[in-house]
Amino acid sequence: MIDKKEIYDVAIIGTGPAGFSAAIYASRYKLKTIIFGKSAGGNMMWTPLIENYPGFEKISGVELAKKMEKQVEKLGVPILKEEVKSVCKNENLFGIQTEKQAYFAKTIIIAWGTQKRKLNVPNEDEYIGKGIAYCATCDAPLFKNKDVAIVGGGNSAAVAAKVLREHVKKIYMIYLDLIMDPVDIELLKKDKKIEFIQDQVTEIKGNGFVESAILKSGKKIDVSGIFVEIGDLPNELPCEKIKIKTDKKGYILTNNEMETSAKGVFAAGDCISKKLKQIINATGDGAVAAHSAFIFLKN
Amino acid sequence: MIDKKEIYDVAIIGTGPAGFSAAIYASRYKLKTIIFGKSAGGNMMWTPLIENYPGFEKISGVELAKKMEKQVEKLGVPILKEEVKSVCKNENLFGIQTEKQAYFAKTIIIAWGTQKRKLNVPNEDEYIGKGIAYCATCDAPLFKNKDVAIVGGGNSAAVAAKVLREHVKKIYMIYLDLIMDPVDIELLKKDKKIEFIQDQVTEIKGNGFVESAILKSGKKIDVSGIFVEIGDLPNELPCEKIKIKTDKKGYILTNNEMETSAKGVFAAGDCISKKLKQIINATGDGAVAAHSAFIFLKN
Repeated sequence: MIDKKEIYDVAIIGTGPAGFSAAIYASRYKLKTIIFGKSAGGNMMWTPLIENYPGFEKISGVELAKKMEKQVEKLGVPILKEEVKSVCKNENLFGIQTEKQAYFAKTIIIAWGTQKRKLNVPNEDEYIGKGIAYCATCDAPLFKNKDVAIVGGGNSAAVAAKVLREHVKKIYMIYLDLIMDPVDIELLKKDKKIEFIQDQVTEIKGNGFVESAILKSGKKIDVSGIFVEIGDLPNELPCEKIKIKTDKKGYILTNNEMETSAKGVFAAGDCISKKLKQIINATGDGAVAAHSAFIFLKN
Repeated sequence: MIDKKEIYDVAIIGTGPAGFSAAIYASRYKLKTIIFGKSAGGNMMWTPLIENYPGFEKISGVELAKKMEKQVEKLGVPILKEEVKSVCKNENLFGIQTEKQAYFAKTIIIAWGTQKRKLNVPNEDEYIGKGIAYCATCDAPLFKNKDVAIVGGGNSAAVAAKVLREHVKKIYMIYLDLIMDPVDIELLKKDKKIEFIQDQVTEIKGNGFVESAILKSGKKIDVSGIFVEIGDLPNELPCEKIKIKTDKKGYILTNNEMETSAKGVFAAGDCISKKLKQIINATGDGAVAAHSAFIFLKN
């Protein structure tokens, strides 16, 4: 038997902007709330400089994450820095199993973001941490005065370029479609350090550490580092008792109220199916998800 | 003929959080952007203390509005403090007529918020500014040590109560449904200054200034001020050439991408049909609307 005192109204999985915003709202609705996340900030943490979160002209991802975390803490919501291993359902209760123990809640808000997409080329795994990197913010200083490649043409590739150019000697931007914000294309194309190449990495060569990348055109570029910025993949919820509809790519389908196809399950942030994935609409989603959980519990 | 140089990519109508967020995003998409609003901040301005905008533990509406306005200004977007009198369409161009002149744009983002709902009881108009008030933040100090009524049971009524109790002697909360956040119900019910009455104001009595309110039950309460906090009404777009579908109440229907039923018209913030109307999802909507305008113009 589960002690009723230990049942939460809402368990929020993920401590990125969507999760933190949901926690702020859920707590203000007087819901018994708990939030899980191994590290605070989520995908915000990859961003050294945020210039499009209304209210802050310039703020780092780390700093904004800290502010949100503190806000949640002050509201008295327990933030559990435990990795969620599985989520499932038994009768009307959700069970959240972390590396340490199990927790129970009447509703859940999934805000666990995404995982980084890999290149899927030979040798990629072998060279992770030996030239292959997925976080420019974290690893840029390791490539001081070196030549590197960034693979990707979206906004995260632009962010990586802006970070890396402060450190490295030369950047090859290897992209298929240049879909980053036009303001960034303009900025980066002016930089003589950066060479744009419309192509695809098919192989990585090296000798213990990355030495070059082979492109689809046959071209070989000599680089010490390859930063992979080709987007994200959704996480999966492997529980047969919770049927959550997703889009073809695996992102969770929600309506405007952040309700999923499963009763009592709400979702917010980068893990849901939507076109624009930004901090400011993740926080918006989180608030809406908490409101919907509140309405669900009240009825 | 309109000079092509004077045609904007996007005209944003409204300088609340939705409009400002749309302006930040549109400008970063390198769209030629203009934003209209008689006064910056929109409905935020009624809120003396915001505690649920992720990133700020506590901030006043005025301060948050100023920050957003400055952010938009720095991005070089012209903020026109002119009242928009009408919006219409001619061929593929939108015309925005302000009190001063006409402007032209390829797309519009409607973010003009709402207007305050009135009580619709006899003498209401006569006593506006003479005891009848619609903004506690603005008018609270005028009622120092007086008895007042707040009409409404939602979050804006709660905000009004929190502001007014710092000034007045006694507050009657006259409500039909108590739908404010439970955290606020708990807080306000503890306050001996505040008396909750489930009833309805049917008449206002006075002699030059408000002296009492007559309730549906027949009860008479003697008050010097009546703060009306019974929600909002949508604004209308009287242009036959733009067919925007709305819900029954007149709020604009959008999809997840903030597209309206009219081509090239996007909407965001409190003017759209949705359950939760908060600053944080207004800003989220604004970003999405700007993204959709960008995609529309690119195709």
